[in-house]
Amino acid sequence: MKPKIVRGTRDFFSVTVNKRNFIFEKLRNIFVKYGFNALETPAMESLETLTGKYGEEGDQLLFKILNNGDFLKKANTDALSTSDSKTLASSISKRALRYDLTVPFARFVAMHRNELHFPYRRYQIQPVWRADNPQKGRYREFYQCDVDIIGSDSLLNEAELIQIYDEAFDSLGIQVVIRLNNRKILDGLAAYCGRPDLFMPITVAIDKLDKIGWSGVQKEIESMGLDLTAFEKIKAVVTAPDLQTLKKYFAAIEIGTEGIKELQTVLDFLEGYQFSNQLKIDFSLARGLSYYTGCIFEVAVDTSIDHQKNIKIGSIGGGGRYADLTGIFGLKDMSGVGVSFGAARIYDVMDELDLFDNIDLNECKVMLLCMDETALKYGFKAIRKIRQAGIASSIYPKAWKFQKLMKFANNVKVPFVVVIGSQEVDSGMLGFKNMQTGDQNACSIDSIIQQLSK
Amino acid sequence: MKPKIVRGTRDFFSVTVNKRNFIFEKLRNIFVKYGFNALETPAMESLETLTGKYGEEGDQLLFKILNNGDFLKKANTDALSTSDSKTLASSISKRALRYDLTVPFARFVAMHRNELHFPYRRYQIQPVWRADNPQKGRYREFYQCDVDIIGSDSLLNEAELIQIYDEAFDSLGIQVVIRLNNRKILDGLAAYCGRPDLFMPITVAIDKLDKIGWSGVQKEIESMGLDLTAFEKIKAVVTAPDLQTLKKYFAAIEIGTEGIKELQTVLDFLEGYQFSNQLKIDFSLARGLSYYTGCIFEVAVDTSIDHQKNIKIGSIGGGGRYADLTGIFGLKDMSGVGVSFGAARIYDVMDELDLFDNIDLNECKVMLLCMDETALKYGFKAIRKIRQAGIASSIYPKAWKFQKLMKFANNVKVPFVVVIGSQEVDSGMLGFKNMQTGDQNACSIDSIIQQLSK
Repeated sequence: MKPKIVRGTRDFFSVTVNKRNFIFEKLRNIFVKYGFNALETPAMESLETLTGKYGEEGDQLLFKILNNGDFLKKANTDALSTSDSKTLASSISKRALRYDLTVPFARFVAMHRNELHFPYRRYQIQPVWRADNPQKGRYREFYQCDVDIIGSDSLLNEAELIQIYDEAFDSLGIQVVIRLNNRKILDGLAAYCGRPDLFMPITVAIDKLDKIGWSGVQKEIESMGLDLTAFEKIKAVVTAPDLQTLKKYFAAIEIGTEGIKELQTVLDFLEGYQFSNQLKIDFSLARGLSYYTGCIFEVAVDTSIDHQKNIKIGSIGGGGRYADLTGIFGLKDMSGVGVSFGAARIYDVMDELDLFDNIDLNECKVMLLCMDETALKYGFKAIRKIRQAGIASSIYPKAWKFQKLMKFANNVKVPFVVVIGSQEVDSGMLGFKNMQTGDQNACSIDSIIQQLSK
Repeated sequence: MKPKIVRGTRDFFSVTVNKRNFIFEKLRNIFVKYGFNALETPAMESLETLTGKYGEEGDQLLFKILNNGDFLKKANTDALSTSDSKTLASSISKRALRYDLTVPFARFVAMHRNELHFPYRRYQIQPVWRADNPQKGRYREFYQCDVDIIGSDSLLNEAELIQIYDEAFDSLGIQVVIRLNNRKILDGLAAYCGRPDLFMPITVAIDKLDKIGWSGVQKEIESMGLDLTAFEKIKAVVTAPDLQTLKKYFAAIEIGTEGIKELQTVLDFLEGYQFSNQLKIDFSLARGLSYYTGCIFEVAVDTSIDHQKNIKIGSIGGGGRYADLTGIFGLKDMSGVGVSFGAARIYDVMDELDLFDNIDLNECKVMLLCMDETALKYGFKAIRKIRQAGIASSIYPKAWKFQKLMKFANNVKVPFVVVIGSQEVDSGMLGFKNMQTGDQNACSIDSIIQQLSK
């Protein structure tokens, strides 16, 4: 039987796991510092919980679990006779793997409403599964990392999440631009053009500004039947230099004025906060518009900084406020705000910027190589001392020839080795070798520990 | 729609996640110190990889994933027409959730044989899924934690795993008994009775010694058609005080002698090692006998120690050597040895022994309560300083009445609060209250940080 892995999934070797854990550990420390609660939900949710939450397309991407036992007993016989896979599925499967962390979170909050106290603040770092067609950078199993506050409409929460983004990326060593907008400003913009009904297409057009430029946006606007005046209004709003200017445009637009007020309140809370990164108000930001109802966030690598200018990876985080997340589960009026961290992309950015280079990644630091049985016993006693000093170390478990042992040590890329033969056992001075430089010295075990502890 | 969770699975609240992470962190640190590589494999494996590895019963307990899209197209039409769920399953499902970490590890090793260098040492901490009937203490999703060395038959590996057990439980604060036996001694025992063919039933009978006592074992032995002499031989071997005594019994039994020699070699490697726990050779230990081929380990709470005497939880760890783990995947002659840690049971033991009591579990330590808008802005600036000092802290995101705020702080069980009203804003002396003792003092922010940092 040929061993094979499920398409679109990956085995993660040690260095990858350790790098990823380094990121998660940094993020977790910040979430904890900001007083967030950890949460873990099950990999499986009931199919009912997940269906219809991610649109028609999302439903197709759910990994459904086949019911156990004699599942055909309760199968939909009509669907069976007409070979209707889609209809049959829900009669032979009642569970699926989670598709994201948001819906399980909403289910959790609604289910435990009487045990939780609101506002409830949680972070969650767990894998999710999607039956997407695998391609470069797109997998069927990947981690998500979400932070949310639910049960409070205070804009202090938005300010806090911006601080979390700022601190998190600073602690990872990535310089970012945090972009901020408000859905109500996008709503106001459509109203300002006299066409609140065109909110969706106008927003979609603006969202493409980065890619298609103003001429492209103009074409799209015109294709909606809007005139040049409308386009110029749109352009004026989106390029407004500050909230004051926008306030004038929106003087008669209630929803837009509200959006400005919300952004101003967030900025007021952040007054005097020393940013490590850039915060930019961006009236063209229109992320997940069908979902968010207030502030919208997006984080991208700051490519204006020289050593980051070649990073081609787009958004590495985003989020916003949603007025009603748990309504579908019968818990009304729960306003929430949350952000996520794009763990896989953050990983790629850090790799490209060599940010893992000077980090102790918990990999084995030294390997003991013993050339005869006496040396092996001696080495197994010596390694106790090395481990007592907290140094990640291993011993090749058999006595062997020097060349063979060195070849193994080379293959596993351990940075240091200690060579022990009969001479070393007699003298207590062991062969301590730096595998990168090739330097080798006869050292006592204590001296080796001292050098490795540096 | 009523929110519900999948039967047999659980949501893990913050304290539980943090306690569990505390355990995993301690274990991980030790695995790293012993030079093991981290490994993570996908939640899904191909059904082919998993089927037949856990016996008939195990196959029934796999959570199978329904194929995506029009899965009926490739369905087995015979199985459909005869309503044969079992046969149909493999034609409409080609993946399943992993049932343990051992088979995915074997699949990984066989698949990556050309990238790995043997002996390969890995640890893996991930959830597994089983469609077992849920009952108290038995769930359908739970973590496993395994450490294995593959590609080396050296008994130094066994010695190392015993040290890992010893250090791990010491670092968790649980006193344990590590029991050690060897499959070859159990083989030898059957041979010593003149009935190597009865190895399985004899071993099963001995394995029950704890529960049924010697009289019970005798009954079982007799029911196999063995006479009193055979029973007395068995009793003599199992109660042999040391390896020397056993050696005499097994003088003519080659396999038994080999087992003794192996145990002796392990003990020789451990010579001079300062155990924090008890290591006990136990010739009645017969764990997973269909699987292991050499040394066998099992760890239990040491109930001879006074403060642990009421712990009723059985084995909290176990493992052993398997001569051929990857053969089924086409990679022959890979001897391996590994142990697992029963994470859920370790958690329960630590909870019962109050071992989490004096541990900083990353829960929010202090909450700021602000009674008017000015106080809220003041508080949101003050909390920056608290967080800069690395103290887990939160701020109630709205100004509110004192009683309401205190009620919330009480509900979420935060150990300290800082109360801020207009008076506090003016004086800079904030109301610092210990929620356990009820003590309250007016303190500067710096003094509060100092007190919380202790």
